[in-house]
Amino acid sequence: MRFGTIEEAAGSAVVVRSSDDEVVVLPYADLDEMIAVPEPEWRAAVAEGLASGEHRAIASLSWLPPVRRPGKVLCVALNNSANPDRIMSGPSTPAMFVKPSSSLIGNNREILLKEAYGRVHPEPELAVVIGRPGADIAVSDALSHVFGYTIINDLTSPTMRDADTFHYRAIHPDPDSPDGIRYVESWVSYPGRYKGSDTFGPLGPWVATRDAIPDPHALRITCSHDGRLVTDDNTENLRFTVAEVIAFASGFLTLEAGDVIAMGTALKRSAQGGAVQNVDLNRLGGVVEVSIEGIGTLSNPVAWR
Amino acid sequence: MRFGTIEEAAGSAVVVRSSDDEVVVLPYADLDEMIAVPEPEWRAAVAEGLASGEHRAIASLSWLPPVRRPGKVLCVALNNSANPDRIMSGPSTPAMFVKPSSSLIGNNREILLKEAYGRVHPEPELAVVIGRPGADIAVSDALSHVFGYTIINDLTSPTMRDADTFHYRAIHPDPDSPDGIRYVESWVSYPGRYKGSDTFGPLGPWVATRDAIPDPHALRITCSHDGRLVTDDNTENLRFTVAEVIAFASGFLTLEAGDVIAMGTALKRSAQGGAVQNVDLNRLGGVVEVSIEGIGTLSNPVAWR
Repeated sequence: MRFGTIEEAAGSAVVVRSSDDEVVVLPYADLDEMIAVPEPEWRAAVAEGLASGEHRAIASLSWLPPVRRPGKVLCVALNNSANPDRIMSGPSTPAMFVKPSSSLIGNNREILLKEAYGRVHPEPELAVVIGRPGADIAVSDALSHVFGYTIINDLTSPTMRDADTFHYRAIHPDPDSPDGIRYVESWVSYPGRYKGSDTFGPLGPWVATRDAIPDPHALRITCSHDGRLVTDDNTENLRFTVAEVIAFASGFLTLEAGDVIAMGTALKRSAQGGAVQNVDLNRLGGVVEVSIEGIGTLSNPVAWR
Repeated sequence: MRFGTIEEAAGSAVVVRSSDDEVVVLPYADLDEMIAVPEPEWRAAVAEGLASGEHRAIASLSWLPPVRRPGKVLCVALNNSANPDRIMSGPSTPAMFVKPSSSLIGNNREILLKEAYGRVHPEPELAVVIGRPGADIAVSDALSHVFGYTIINDLTSPTMRDADTFHYRAIHPDPDSPDGIRYVESWVSYPGRYKGSDTFGPLGPWVATRDAIPDPHALRITCSHDGRLVTDDNTENLRFTVAEVIAFASGFLTLEAGDVIAMGTALKRSAQGGAVQNVDLNRLGGVVEVSIEGIGTLSNPVAWR
């Protein structure tokens, strides 16, 4: 099954896809709310909706992010098997950062840029929506915590990334003196702006339930800009798997129902051309689309504020 | 006025301080809920509570984070006027990262560490709770968006910070070829674990309303460990002011009611001893306290999970 959240005159509603062209409206304001109710209960509401609910044309829908206010959008960095060639030193476990829910937008919504953002490029990614909360989850049990899979465009400004990087002398304890310190030359960078600015998180439109995606690591993922194919990759090229990331992350950050985990950028270029880093949306504008096999297509036009 | 959120048998409740020893329980589940209602309405509820509500001894309260599920906890890095001496290169504007709401704990709650976290030290900080949402806020208007001020202990693991730092060749567009790329040697670090792990965000216990803090940049801020004074600083030493941070941040990330902004670590050591970096809570255990003049004291014992 595939679910989404749409804007309604009176607020918002969850929809379930009933055919290639239509959805049925369900009695939940958003997936955050639906996921929080026990599974047998929402499954009954879905069955009742499909049997007797109100049908709508998919083409008429005004999309919101399927999960509107997740507790966290946890993003895995540099998680493509193509990355290690260019990593001179780095962790052997998933490295993560948090994108705020205020950065999320739905399908077809405008990516709103400012000149001050500098270069902004798309990053096509598989995203996981957590259904069952947990901490210290075992790899073997990890997928049972997944509600479903969706698409995120993890928009990134390398200009702001460079700007918010410090080369500095970090304060470390002096091993020879209990109250003494020593300086260690370090680099540290902060992703608040370059990953978290408003509209930097297009999400959706669909969340395909776990049972609809038998193998999350056998999905073609593409990114196109103004109709030109840029990325043509497959989720088999993720370095750390969904189960590994859930297990590792939950050893540090408790996962809550509705949390979103972005699995890292699909990098493999299409035969036709450039890298996502060549697609400077702040200069080029246009429409950026991310598609994942079995999940759908996330499309967003660029505008300026 | 000073507000907090406490655990109740039936869930949680907002309390308002009615004397040095007592609070009155208000009809809101948490400050997130109270801040979302119009100010005249919550002010009327507070007046009614103070006139006829149920009094409780402060010593008997079981504290929760005053804001339980903020949309974001936006943290400003390296924002003490003592920092520039050790910054070799860095931004001339506030650098920010996001801590997830799942990392927050209330006053007196245990900071739960694991051996795998490595070194973990406290960071005493003034925090702002946003009342009125906004984007592109002017410096001159910024403080009108503040609901109040609280205390955050922005716990940090330098071991995980070092582990989650990449030295790598970043992909940049080749200026001489529209689809070409070049590699640029870069450093990037990801704060998901080292700043966002469970219990890494002690918050509260009190939120002092804006009108109770005439100048947020004239407050003594201290940090002590097992009764020994470590930090003895003043919020006058913040590099970027509350108004400047709100204005700058809101130009990128829309601020929502209930959002928390952590203003950066108070660094100045007390006359007695070490730096916060010397206080490795994972090795020493004990109780860490952060106090801010006019706001209160946030106290948390260390335990291991």
